[in-house]
Amino acid sequence: MELLKQRIKEEGFCLPGNILKVDSFLNHQIDPQLSLAMGKEFARLFVDVKVDKVVTVESSGIAIALAVAAELGTKLVFARKHQSALMEEDRYACPITSFTKKETKNVYILKKFLTAGEKVLIIDDFLADGNAALGLCNIVEQGGCEVVGIGIAIEKSFQRGAERIREAGYRLESLARIKSLSDCKIEFVEE
Amino acid sequence: MELLKQRIKEEGFCLPGNILKVDSFLNHQIDPQLSLAMGKEFARLFVDVKVDKVVTVESSGIAIALAVAAELGTKLVFARKHQSALMEEDRYACPITSFTKKETKNVYILKKFLTAGEKVLIIDDFLADGNAALGLCNIVEQGGCEVVGIGIAIEKSFQRGAERIREAGYRLESLARIKSLSDCKIEFVEE
Repeated sequence: MELLKQRIKEEGFCLPGNILKVDSFLNHQIDPQLSLAMGKEFARLFVDVKVDKVVTVESSGIAIALAVAAELGTKLVFARKHQSALMEEDRYACPITSFTKKETKNVYILKKFLTAGEKVLIIDDFLADGNAALGLCNIVEQGGCEVVGIGIAIEKSFQRGAERIREAGYRLESLARIKSLSDCKIEFVEE
Repeated sequence: MELLKQRIKEEGFCLPGNILKVDSFLNHQIDPQLSLAMGKEFARLFVDVKVDKVVTVESSGIAIALAVAAELGTKLVFARKHQSALMEEDRYACPITSFTKKETKNVYILKKFLTAGEKVLIIDDFLADGNAALGLCNIVEQGGCEVVGIGIAIEKSFQRGAERIREAGYRLESLARIKSLSDCKIEFVEE
């Protein structure tokens, strides 16, 4: 998606450890026009698939997933990372290790928000080693739902996430694919 | 806002401790059409005010705030509750005690995303005792910005938040005002 790649080129920067910061438009400050454009692009990429529900994980996935769900006319469920007094009902859980935060946390979805047989599109902002996306697949499948695709805004193609997702048999569509962040230089995969 | 009140009547339920659960459409599962409608309604309520930026706090405020910012043509910044390796830059912080979670946490906004003189509209899903909204005002003012209004989806009018906000001199607009949750019965303020 040219618009997203352009923004990454203009505003993204690298931190040591293969970390790409895009917090001026994607995950701290958000540009709603870009979120809505990403929603339309995911809807286009998955136009051949029936989607009953969009699933993401808090917090950075919510804006993009909302745009996708609005475009597809479905509801959105965001998995929660933090157990709350308000979540004492039956829920599905899966431990997810964050690439950037280097910590493992359970994420939760209440059982009542996944109905067996539903076709689910998973959306997230970043794909690094694939733990978040595959954890969301696990939760969705615990609910008897089918993962019909995984949509990622920024895929770090030099890490193992994309390969793990495809090996697990899921369809993956990424809007921008980063080939390398070596020497703090952002290189995209040639499309 | 009749549409929101209708959804609260149909799908909301109470938990002991004056807690209203609306997680089927507002803050775990989200109905994007309702989020977009709330965005339009906030834009209408604050039509007389110049807004440069929308500010909320993760996670439940993001969907509504995105809809508002999209409607107003501004950017959105969501305050983060969790310090991250990616947030080692200069930031503003304020401790906020959550009414539902009974815990105090610092929330953060990176300094570079608040520019002195900007007019900020604060958006959140719930107003109980006002700690989150007033904490966001504090952070925004640390950045030299002006809070031009606070927009809340669901105000629990029997708690002290609304009064504290008005006493502090801020303009408050709420889309649904709950008069009482006594005996686990949802009563709205007569408008």
